[in-house]
Amino acid sequence: MHPTADEAAVLAAADAFYTAFEALDMTAMAACWARRDDDVCIHPGWEILTGWREISASWRSIFANTGFMRFEASDLRVEVIGDVARVTCVERIFSVADTHTTHGAVAATSLFLRTDDGWKMTLHHGSPIAATHQVTEIDTGGMDN
Amino acid sequence: MHPTADEAAVLAAADAFYTAFEALDMTAMAACWARRDDDVCIHPGWEILTGWREISASWRSIFANTGFMRFEASDLRVEVIGDVARVTCVERIFSVADTHTTHGAVAATSLFLRTDDGWKMTLHHGSPIAATHQVTEIDTGGMDN
Repeated sequence: MHPTADEAAVLAAADAFYTAFEALDMTAMAACWARRDDDVCIHPGWEILTGWREISASWRSIFANTGFMRFEASDLRVEVIGDVARVTCVERIFSVADTHTTHGAVAATSLFLRTDDGWKMTLHHGSPIAATHQVTEIDTGGMDN
Repeated sequence: MHPTADEAAVLAAADAFYTAFEALDMTAMAACWARRDDDVCIHPGWEILTGWREISASWRSIFANTGFMRFEASDLRVEVIGDVARVTCVERIFSVADTHTTHGAVAATSLFLRTDDGWKMTLHHGSPIAATHQVTEIDTGGMDN
């Protein structure tokens, strides 16, 4: 299915967010956000941060403590409802902070607002996905049923 | 600050969701949701569930495996943008499943849609808040500065 023009623009805004995050670039990150008092950010495992002042401080702290960050986003889904757009995806993360390397998967919800300056993020919520156990079907050799 | 009529209606819809969850009542839970293919639910630590069929199965499974569930929602914030409403809150949870008792805090984002049948949930995302360490200021007896 081809995305609509709105959906394509929202996906480009989501892509700009991940590019800014990988670049650890505060100016590019700030440009992605609506920068309102009502913005919300919930980093994986963190409390709820509200308002651009708190949120921007968190990004500065994360960028200062991260040496390397790469994302692979999968299962991207976008829905546009009026002037609000919702994006969900799974972020597969590889990061290096000091000597500590992290691999992991995060389920992410983002909300964007339609503004005169394009689609801007107003909410980002990431939550760690617990490692799941692979359940293997036992070959019973056709013994049951 | 007094909520607007829209905000009050959204907060009532959020309250109905928590009441249904505490009651472990599938009929009441179903009545809270938009029940669309585009609905999204991310339980704490879970993968992303999409569509009412998958989401309702998850609630049935949770209800079947939970004996007792109580919430205390705090830091409730609501924002209505056109026909979409966003609620964020901290859920303090006390639950009993089999012989296992859980206390914990979850950061939650919910989205509601304005429908002919009132505000209906279309996204719920919960993420565990990691226990934080209380940082106590050390009384230096005025020795520094």
